[in-house]
Amino acid sequence: MHTEQQQRAHTLLRSRGIDHALFANPYTVTWLTGFTPPLQHGAGPFVGGPPVVWYEAGEFMLIVIDFYDTAGLTIPVVHYPGNTVDRPIPSADNLAKIVRDFVSRGPSAAKLGAEMRHLPAFLLPPEANSVAIDGWLDPLRMVKTAEELEALRRAFALTDLAHAAARRATGVGAREIEVWTAAHSAAQQAAGGHLPFGNDCVVSYRQNNIGGLPGDLALHPGDSLMVDLSVRADGYWSDSCATYYAAEPSEKQKAMHRVAMQALEFAISLIKPGVRASEIDRKVRGFIAEAGYPVYPHHTGHGIGVSTHEEPRIVPYNSIPLEPGMVIMLEPGIYFPQEAAVRLEDAVLVTSDGAVVLTHHDKSLP
Amino acid sequence: MHTEQQQRAHTLLRSRGIDHALFANPYTVTWLTGFTPPLQHGAGPFVGGPPVVWYEAGEFMLIVIDFYDTAGLTIPVVHYPGNTVDRPIPSADNLAKIVRDFVSRGPSAAKLGAEMRHLPAFLLPPEANSVAIDGWLDPLRMVKTAEELEALRRAFALTDLAHAAARRATGVGAREIEVWTAAHSAAQQAAGGHLPFGNDCVVSYRQNNIGGLPGDLALHPGDSLMVDLSVRADGYWSDSCATYYAAEPSEKQKAMHRVAMQALEFAISLIKPGVRASEIDRKVRGFIAEAGYPVYPHHTGHGIGVSTHEEPRIVPYNSIPLEPGMVIMLEPGIYFPQEAAVRLEDAVLVTSDGAVVLTHHDKSLP
Repeated sequence: MHTEQQQRAHTLLRSRGIDHALFANPYTVTWLTGFTPPLQHGAGPFVGGPPVVWYEAGEFMLIVIDFYDTAGLTIPVVHYPGNTVDRPIPSADNLAKIVRDFVSRGPSAAKLGAEMRHLPAFLLPPEANSVAIDGWLDPLRMVKTAEELEALRRAFALTDLAHAAARRATGVGAREIEVWTAAHSAAQQAAGGHLPFGNDCVVSYRQNNIGGLPGDLALHPGDSLMVDLSVRADGYWSDSCATYYAAEPSEKQKAMHRVAMQALEFAISLIKPGVRASEIDRKVRGFIAEAGYPVYPHHTGHGIGVSTHEEPRIVPYNSIPLEPGMVIMLEPGIYFPQEAAVRLEDAVLVTSDGAVVLTHHDKSLP
Repeated sequence: MHTEQQQRAHTLLRSRGIDHALFANPYTVTWLTGFTPPLQHGAGPFVGGPPVVWYEAGEFMLIVIDFYDTAGLTIPVVHYPGNTVDRPIPSADNLAKIVRDFVSRGPSAAKLGAEMRHLPAFLLPPEANSVAIDGWLDPLRMVKTAEELEALRRAFALTDLAHAAARRATGVGAREIEVWTAAHSAAQQAAGGHLPFGNDCVVSYRQNNIGGLPGDLALHPGDSLMVDLSVRADGYWSDSCATYYAAEPSEKQKAMHRVAMQALEFAISLIKPGVRASEIDRKVRGFIAEAGYPVYPHHTGHGIGVSTHEEPRIVPYNSIPLEPGMVIMLEPGIYFPQEAAVRLEDAVLVTSDGAVVLTHHDKSLP
């Protein structure tokens, strides 16, 4: 499990002269190991520090608190004692000691790579010959392994179900939070367990109707609801967006919805190996502008995997060419603040001759 | 808002010779400022670093990405630009520059306090004369302000509602995840918005029936379900536990439930200013043992506030005496792995002459 990722990372680190390394970015940790801690709630003091991965002599090792069950992993794991009732919780000191011991084992001239943007300061040995390696693995994460694709497909299937529940729950009088809980409950019941859940559930009459967590706002006839959903399953996130209507949409809403749908279909038609992210971005923005609508102020799309937004970003500056095995979200939208909003979003897998759509939620007009 | 907290922290920092400081522990940040970012989901790259608080000359200032709305706060806020579609996301560099500028403004001999267990390494200026201040504010957080008590009461009221829904959803055939989604949905619909939610929802026939996230396990006649719930509202967490039954409990379950209830009532009766945490812990463990049951392997209780577990921990080693204004969870339990489990938990506010119970969920036998 995740051995391809470790091999790719090892090749890169060796080529850049890194002798040993500490990874602390939670996305890197999941990508390298398959380990996905439950998202932190309020019990921070029980946890000495973030899960970290130690790299040395071509091998990777996960270091986590003993609270975590790591039975399913194939990577070596070092557990450190965490919570205790017999003395003050020693977990942070235990973690620091393990890291210090690993680092001090090597020759003092050895080059220590460290993800400085996530590694807590107390875990960086001040005497180490350290180099920031933040973002180094991001390009490696773009092309998905077969195992990752399976996890992503499971996650997308769950948001498909969540959207079906959201569509059913939308109607005159329904509140944003009601649609949200219906969608989240449906996904969790289908998965048979707790699922981290995002992103947006907002009525069209909000000032910022592009995104946001659900609130207490109710739908009236003529309102629409933008529902942008992600779940994390086996460490991998889905994403997806649809726009639903309280009742019969107006002519203006129908026209906007049709253009967003055509823009999404157009975006999907552009996907193939070699095409640059910036070109897709430019053409989809152009499509919206030519239809006579204001161009959305956000990205046209983005990669997805252990995080909800990753490379390749489909944005104006990004000249990365697409490659088979990339999984990309595409999400054109049209927004008139406080009045009307539509966004439709699908996931596609880049293949040798085009794209396979991975999301199957109903994005049609009612 | 949160000015009492800032005053207490300032007094402490000055008394220990700290000239300026960087706080990065999310609980500290909420406690000092009232700012509570939504719990992170999968969009890490959009966020340059954690929210941090800068302390200088007796003043506190919040530093966060421009994505966050901080309109309701009274503390000064520095926003740094985050996501952009025009160039690579610069948020981490923007944050680092702000921190460097603040630190370098002071005299080079100035003592910089830093929460090293949470501050990412890239934000600690290597040339600074830095001192670890992790945990320094923990004792100050024990006694709640009037404003904090109000937030805690709101959070407890929401878990009361969640428990009522969980009790209704429990029955033969119900799955852990169904009870969990019913409880979470009820709390969110009452709050009119998204609520972070924890902790445990486990059937009695699990090997580890003390805690864990809900799964796909169904209740049969004779099973019980332990439901331990927390929500975060306005930055403050609730906590609470009850045990529900699929059908009529057995005589053994009834006896265990009654002893747990008596142990909880006994624990509440011990609460008053001056009593040591260790004494409460010892007496409640003794109560369970005298009733002929195995003593629970976890804490007897803990403080609660911006985190779900904080000082004063009600554990054997902890000689902290209670003070008026502390809010304490008490949670005796009895566990027979794979067979039977009961835990009941209430929150109490320590007052000048005893305790006021803050949780009002139904913990009775059916």
